[in-house]
Amino acid sequence: MVEYIKPGSWSSRAVIHNGVVYLSGVVADDKTLSMAGQTEQILKKIDKVLKKAGSDKTKILSAVIYLADMDLKDEMNEVWISWIDPAHLPARAAVGVDLTLGTLVEIKVEATIQTT
Amino acid sequence: MVEYIKPGSWSSRAVIHNGVVYLSGVVADDKTLSMAGQTEQILKKIDKVLKKAGSDKTKILSAVIYLADMDLKDEMNEVWISWIDPAHLPARAAVGVDLTLGTLVEIKVEATIQTT
Amino acid sequence: MVEYIKPGSWSSRAVIHNGVVYLSGVVADDKTLSMAGQTEQILKKIDKVLKKAGSDKTKILSAVIYLADMDLKDEMNEVWISWIDPAHLPARAAVGVDLTLGTLVEIKVEATIQTT
Repeated sequence: MVEYIKPGSWSSRAVIHNGVVYLSGVVADDKTLSMAGQTEQILKKIDKVLKKAGSDKTKILSAVIYLADMDLKDEMNEVWISWIDPAHLPARAAVGVDLTLGTLVEIKVEATIQTT
Repeated sequence: MVEYIKPGSWSSRAVIHNGVVYLSGVVADDKTLSMAGQTEQILKKIDKVLKKAGSDKTKILSAVIYLADMDLKDEMNEVWISWIDPAHLPARAAVGVDLTLGTLVEIKVEATIQTT
Repeated sequence: MVEYIKPGSWSSRAVIHNGVVYLSGVVADDKTLSMAGQTEQILKKIDKVLKKAGSDKTKILSAVIYLADMDLKDEMNEVWISWIDPAHLPARAAVGVDLTLGTLVEIKVEATIQTT
């Protein structure tokens, strides 16, 4: 069985299957924010989607972080480190890509919804 | 057990494990086509590979769409929307990258093969 | 249950859940190496991480290869082909992105740890 969270016009915010929740890439709503600000906003949105799915940030398995400017990777990373649970660090990659205008970072994660 | 679909020289078209089929990134054969045309060709190829794996587009869990030109994202998106089942919208991200010459878009998906 | 392999400051080298090991993107330590040299170093590191996780290269399900220069894709590919087991070819995509200075290639894989 597959469960869909917040389906939109072309994707769902998240899809749950076999104990894993696959999130869509999340971007900040406020494009005027700095890399740090956009990252904070994204991570808050990820918290909410994970909660809806019955998961949370301690259960993230893997993340891909897409950055519009690799020179700002450290700025993203500081916010990530202050957010992520050091006892539950996911697999991760951070790479530089083109994003839509004003978007500095987009984060796509997969998490487990299992409690044990 | 792992099952391989259409293995080639360096990758398989798809790999099945534990109820999930992982597809390789799919590109269009005809590089003279527009973004819309390449996207159509890719989605037809994805339909075929999913069918071989015992899955279909209503069972896609997650997709990453790699675009050679983010200015053409809307053109890709129109074709995607007319193809994807609105009742089964996967998680998705679409990002701008460099692709091989003439390739405008490459799509990599994961789907379930489970029927319930 | 989720198991973490070599947790660092912001990510783990790998995360195991439900029979699948998710690796972080792996880069070469020696940035003076050519594309071929960096790819060799990365694949050796992946061998080690997979071994720690109770897996190996014959059990890779899916790989994304991030290249800093798509003109060097063939150079990466030759090393990949000489390394990967032709009887167990994973799903794969290779795309061009920006990486940190000197890094020519980064590889992120998922593998099963199941023996049958």
